[in-house]
Amino acid sequence: MTRGTLHRPLLATDIASWDIETDVAVIGFGAAGACAALEAARAGASVILFEAGSGSGGTSALSGGEIYIGGGTDIQRAAGFEDTQDALAAYLKMAGGADADIAKCELYAAHSLAHFEWLKAQGVPYKGTFLPGKIIEPPEDDTLIWSGSEEAWPFSATAKPAPRGHVIQFMGWGGGRKLMDVLEARVREAGVDVRIDARASSLIMEGERVVGLMARIDNRPVYVRAHRGVVLATGGFCMNPDMLARYAPQTLKLSNPIGENDNGSGILMGMSAGGDAIHMDEFFTTCPWIVPPDFVKGIFVNEGGQRFINEDCYHGRVSRTMVDQPGSKVWLLVDNEIFGKPLDMARITIAAVGESWEEVGRELGLPEDLLAATVRSFNRYAADGCDPAFHKAPHWLKVLDEAPFAALELNFRDSYFSFFTLGGLSTLPTGQVRDRAGEAIPGLYAAGRATSGLPRWGHGYSSGMSLADCTFFGRQAGRHAAIAV
Amino acid sequence: MTRGTLHRPLLATDIASWDIETDVAVIGFGAAGACAALEAARAGASVILFEAGSGSGGTSALSGGEIYIGGGTDIQRAAGFEDTQDALAAYLKMAGGADADIAKCELYAAHSLAHFEWLKAQGVPYKGTFLPGKIIEPPEDDTLIWSGSEEAWPFSATAKPAPRGHVIQFMGWGGGRKLMDVLEARVREAGVDVRIDARASSLIMEGERVVGLMARIDNRPVYVRAHRGVVLATGGFCMNPDMLARYAPQTLKLSNPIGENDNGSGILMGMSAGGDAIHMDEFFTTCPWIVPPDFVKGIFVNEGGQRFINEDCYHGRVSRTMVDQPGSKVWLLVDNEIFGKPLDMARITIAAVGESWEEVGRELGLPEDLLAATVRSFNRYAADGCDPAFHKAPHWLKVLDEAPFAALELNFRDSYFSFFTLGGLSTLPTGQVRDRAGEAIPGLYAAGRATSGLPRWGHGYSSGMSLADCTFFGRQAGRHAAIAV
Repeated sequence: MTRGTLHRPLLATDIASWDIETDVAVIGFGAAGACAALEAARAGASVILFEAGSGSGGTSALSGGEIYIGGGTDIQRAAGFEDTQDALAAYLKMAGGADADIAKCELYAAHSLAHFEWLKAQGVPYKGTFLPGKIIEPPEDDTLIWSGSEEAWPFSATAKPAPRGHVIQFMGWGGGRKLMDVLEARVREAGVDVRIDARASSLIMEGERVVGLMARIDNRPVYVRAHRGVVLATGGFCMNPDMLARYAPQTLKLSNPIGENDNGSGILMGMSAGGDAIHMDEFFTTCPWIVPPDFVKGIFVNEGGQRFINEDCYHGRVSRTMVDQPGSKVWLLVDNEIFGKPLDMARITIAAVGESWEEVGRELGLPEDLLAATVRSFNRYAADGCDPAFHKAPHWLKVLDEAPFAALELNFRDSYFSFFTLGGLSTLPTGQVRDRAGEAIPGLYAAGRATSGLPRWGHGYSSGMSLADCTFFGRQAGRHAAIAV
Repeated sequence: MTRGTLHRPLLATDIASWDIETDVAVIGFGAAGACAALEAARAGASVILFEAGSGSGGTSALSGGEIYIGGGTDIQRAAGFEDTQDALAAYLKMAGGADADIAKCELYAAHSLAHFEWLKAQGVPYKGTFLPGKIIEPPEDDTLIWSGSEEAWPFSATAKPAPRGHVIQFMGWGGGRKLMDVLEARVREAGVDVRIDARASSLIMEGERVVGLMARIDNRPVYVRAHRGVVLATGGFCMNPDMLARYAPQTLKLSNPIGENDNGSGILMGMSAGGDAIHMDEFFTTCPWIVPPDFVKGIFVNEGGQRFINEDCYHGRVSRTMVDQPGSKVWLLVDNEIFGKPLDMARITIAAVGESWEEVGRELGLPEDLLAATVRSFNRYAADGCDPAFHKAPHWLKVLDEAPFAALELNFRDSYFSFFTLGGLSTLPTGQVRDRAGEAIPGLYAAGRATSGLPRWGHGYSSGMSLADCTFFGRQAGRHAAIAV
């Protein structure tokens, strides 16, 4: 018998006997897999969920449990924000970059409110409160926050801004685990057969159709026939250094993958069945530098002492742009008025302090008044409430003129730049995996970070977009797999 | 019979009878295919070369016929340059970016001199003269030019600079056609069976091995058995808008693909056999803005009036970085002393002229003295012969202070930004195509822009690197295919 691998499917004709049969097999018990399994089971299919780890959660459980939702939720309205389906769609398309998935953006915008109701109906709790300001995750259990670049140029010029980060009610950071607990409870109630410590290791094909998978359980191969479909919900590949080098080499600069088991296995299995993997170079990264929020009034410069972005963008967009700079570090320039202690976990250090920007520049090893010239030019316009070079919004502009001054260092080796990958399988809005000719591969579905979905451009990512994609398009994949024949 | 496509191989068991048999089949008659066919034939194999067009040339014939060669050629030495294998290897590795193919860089550096002798032995003529300065292609028939970023930061800090662009003797631009005429003559002398108007449309596999191909000739399918190997030398995918969107969406900004028939067919066929396509987002682009060369003394600014690179880098690296800027255009700022008429084909226009930089800025629609501040900061250091922000080399620094002043506009819609793709199949230095597990696929080889080779990072590309890769690694592929069993 031919040996199957992540890279090569087994052939059904080589399977002597099937160990398990089911309608739908879901691989991976993060948010995407949970939602897929749930919808498939509710549509009447028998569902088995295979999870390589020892329990539910995946990378979703490491998140803040924040979901990007808009179009006018009750919570947005209560907080005084008018949001519309069109504004949400416009933002999503812009955030998707040059090859945004228009069909997915429009479908999600049209169903975002209904999806929010669905989440609540599953038991995901929301306190309903709005917390203004620049926030990474709510420090207590508030719901609505600004979680992207909505108010920042160039997004604000195209899509009417509204806060859309909807965070599960949970005290402190890390609500993702609670979100997964809620989803897991529903999955089990729905009768999904959950197999943990079960690592899917190859797909099984019959002609052009995916008909099952081989999993390793107790170190034995188990052959699973899935009559209607297999859903890959295995996450991205931020923990596979070899794939990172070949497909997303810019991430080699960074040291902190956010992942539970993101080894790219589902992407590789999908490709082995002829699936198209797209935008594999894209990734999200962030260093949590916006604590205290007054830091947003500072300005970032690269090793040449030059600014490179409007600092009021989403912290992840600012961080992503840091990675594009030449060299190994950037500096955040702050004056006494906005100085504060960075978040410990960010591992941001003080690189220089001085009574003048000239002194700070010298201490950084920059010649003469290179740094001072950058600040001078910024200050000059900031005094008039504008930033013609980078279009930072007026309410984040502050003349940096109160001594002492400091340069805080963020460097890619030591500072905490978390990252995860955004490239993956190309899917239809139904979750069907497309081959390189654009056709759906019968019997094969994918969702979440195993796909290139709503979030597909690192510079456009906003908090909550990945979970929005995982939960909503996970649901689509499960539902369509269940009714497939 | 299953129908084969670019996306799906045919199975040998489905082929009723073979129309043609050969040892080695080469697909594509550009420089990579010609060199592969030549070496395979000289190694004693029977070789058929299939070309979709009506004659030899491919995209190589559209080039300047310049090959990146170093390590101390007779011509480098005669011009007074000491170059070494180590310096060449160091430059190639840096030019390859974060995932440079170290093995290929080292192999090429070690054999670059021998490869140059081989090219001469094929009859490629070189006048032997060195032409100093910033040059796109020699205006007459000189040989050696600076064709990359060797003298520019940060390359100059790591690899000892030397000019390495070796241009075929040819009056004027466009020596690529002549290069292909020379190679074609040798190919025919070597007894290669050349089939033009023969479009390869799928590979044929027997188990894990590629054993042939199906080509369409006179609109009939022709089944070709290749006993030793198939070499994909089909170029990149700059003329396939669908692939560009999925894999290299930044190129959607650009309007001028350089290609003859670069539809990605070989990459797709290679992937259909399990080949790994890597760094698919990478591309080369350039606008020929360095005519007159004094323009290099100008400074580029983006729509925010900010500089973004040392302008003395290779014109392609500068152009590639333009594409990274926000917005749709950039401006080259020049003063009266260095003003000149841009190359017609570049389609660069004069956006603003003024007696002061303040006036130029106003005319561009920038507020107050934003532009003037950028020039002031540049001038201040240029007067001292340094550029601390971007490290432009001293001999290209000039204080921009002689009125009148001008801003020349390069925009991505109207200006001539030619581009081609750099992503493609992952290959071993032997030319064997690797699968996603890194293993060689038996019987399958690739070379040139169907692969991710020596030039694999758009920001590191230098003129002549693609032809160096095509010719040298084309030879390796042909030789290895010929001796494979």
